[in-house]
Amino acid sequence: MYPEAVRWSDDGRAVDILDQAALPERETRLRLETIDQIAHAIRTLQVRGAPAIGVTAALGLALEAARTTSFAPDAFHENFARAAELLRATRPTAVNLPWAIDRMLACAAAHRTESCGVIACKLYGEATSILEEDRAMCRAIGEHGSALLHDGATVLTHCNAGALATAGMGTALAPVYVAHERGKTARVISCETRPLLQGSRITAWELRRAGIDVTVIADSVAASVMRDRRIDAVLVGADRIAANGDVVNKIGTYALAVLARHHGIPFYVAAPRSTIDAATADGAAIPIEMRDGEEVRRGFGRLTAPAEVPVFSPAFDMTPAEFITAIITEAGVLRPPYPQSIREVYAPGVEGAA
Amino acid sequence: MYPEAVRWSDDGRAVDILDQAALPERETRLRLETIDQIAHAIRTLQVRGAPAIGVTAALGLALEAARTTSFAPDAFHENFARAAELLRATRPTAVNLPWAIDRMLACAAAHRTESCGVIACKLYGEATSILEEDRAMCRAIGEHGSALLHDGATVLTHCNAGALATAGMGTALAPVYVAHERGKTARVISCETRPLLQGSRITAWELRRAGIDVTVIADSVAASVMRDRRIDAVLVGADRIAANGDVVNKIGTYALAVLARHHGIPFYVAAPRSTIDAATADGAAIPIEMRDGEEVRRGFGRLTAPAEVPVFSPAFDMTPAEFITAIITEAGVLRPPYPQSIREVYAPGVEGAA
Repeated sequence: MYPEAVRWSDDGRAVDILDQAALPERETRLRLETIDQIAHAIRTLQVRGAPAIGVTAALGLALEAARTTSFAPDAFHENFARAAELLRATRPTAVNLPWAIDRMLACAAAHRTESCGVIACKLYGEATSILEEDRAMCRAIGEHGSALLHDGATVLTHCNAGALATAGMGTALAPVYVAHERGKTARVISCETRPLLQGSRITAWELRRAGIDVTVIADSVAASVMRDRRIDAVLVGADRIAANGDVVNKIGTYALAVLARHHGIPFYVAAPRSTIDAATADGAAIPIEMRDGEEVRRGFGRLTAPAEVPVFSPAFDMTPAEFITAIITEAGVLRPPYPQSIREVYAPGVEGAA
Repeated sequence: MYPEAVRWSDDGRAVDILDQAALPERETRLRLETIDQIAHAIRTLQVRGAPAIGVTAALGLALEAARTTSFAPDAFHENFARAAELLRATRPTAVNLPWAIDRMLACAAAHRTESCGVIACKLYGEATSILEEDRAMCRAIGEHGSALLHDGATVLTHCNAGALATAGMGTALAPVYVAHERGKTARVISCETRPLLQGSRITAWELRRAGIDVTVIADSVAASVMRDRRIDAVLVGADRIAANGDVVNKIGTYALAVLARHHGIPFYVAAPRSTIDAATADGAAIPIEMRDGEEVRRGFGRLTAPAEVPVFSPAFDMTPAEFITAIITEAGVLRPPYPQSIREVYAPGVEGAA
């Protein structure tokens, strides 16, 4: 069983998260009961991964509504809106956080004429739906993707698109978890993923925790491992997919795609349909966030480069569709030509785990 | 001017090294006067890089001979042999260290009938020759290689095959230093080179110190930079070159070679002829050293992977000759077919900087 990043605790009276800031050193679960604790957990990366953050915010807002049912209606809604904005300000980038918050606000607005108690019930239901939809999306990706893995397959992955990034079993790692559940042997090679090392800190931890065979490599080792024919498939997540199938994902993904092509290894991207940005024709138009060079210069706590040396540190790179063997979504496995296969499954407003 | 890793100080009364263990935080030069200080400097990586270690050992043995000229001949030679074995045991792997020590021992033996004072003089001369040959080898590589770089070229390099690995201006970085001397603009992109980060700790430091424009990237960023056409040439060193031109070098080199080929960028290896292992037909036969997983799990003091997770950490990889545009040696630029061009320059016993 995969570790759960976020779940209800105590019949909806608290939110239970795995403290990811303590990984890989300690496994600690935290019981969050107030909106301030929820905000703190998101802000300090105790919970991370765009889908998991969105789910945590939704659950937190449901908690806050339940705490304030005795308020007068106007005070209840004012307080709820304030709580929503508090959470919205915790992390600037991921789209799931504002998406989940807006969904909760819309739910509260839709039941504005009801009593605070009823609205709190509806919000508990809405938050639970957001949680369950995310889990179902992960499992569907896992089902579709596991069919692509033979028994004994070795999968190479990058960064963390696993259970700890979602409320369910993850996206890129979901096929591995489903294969494992079914009694197939699946082995994972996890690139450590400089600069922030999500591959060694998080992916390696969650797979080990789930009893799946995982080996960590420095990012630069992938090519050698591919040549030695020890990789059956590369499986990565996506941050954004253009209408033509170009994929923006964690820096290093593009190199793996070129290397996989050279070594004749299938290269799969696993992501929910909500990752598809139909308004963007191709990946060249997608802006790439630049990270602070300090993450490279002193990423391990110690200075490992001259203090003032320029560092070029894009957070993501773009992998052209031509390198991608298939895109695994909750609606099925998409194959080239992607402009067509993406159009067929694209459903605007589907936001299982953007 | 490039920083000097090792040089004579005070007319041969001491060895002056740059303390590389203090980099990149502090620039400190150390004055070494005894064989114990020399051994300590090699053991603690205050001096590193196979050619620089060999030169330092030779200079250290010359110091020791000069200190003991008043000994009786037998005591002098016994002490000298003991000093040689002390240095031989400091580092297990590099071939230059035993090569330089054996050359000093052979020099002492060749003058066995002379007085201790004369022998010490001969050993001073021999050590100085080893130093000067290494410098000349570097400069010759720099001259041949700089002709391949146009004014304004951007070079991508990996690990450290620079001045701080030799007594001179390095191997892979020598063409950049020579171009810079001649007033050509040369810009370097240095891959940080996990796990030990020689690219960010050492290469970036020495280039900055020499006033050359250098930018550090995580290893996984190289592919994106190549696609954006910001690289004119990849320039790396070599640990061993097989008779057919296959190259064993720092892990990550092979990935850069495949990526350079894909992006139409020339891929150059710069190395002295002593790196050629004519007895090895091709790279497949060269054993690859495995490093301790702790270098990846807690490379710089902090645990960044589960404590017990398996890590696959080869120190080197093998780049097939077909990916190599040219091999730059002190005897000229070798082009394919390598079995022939290598045979033409190969000179057994040439050990400028193995």
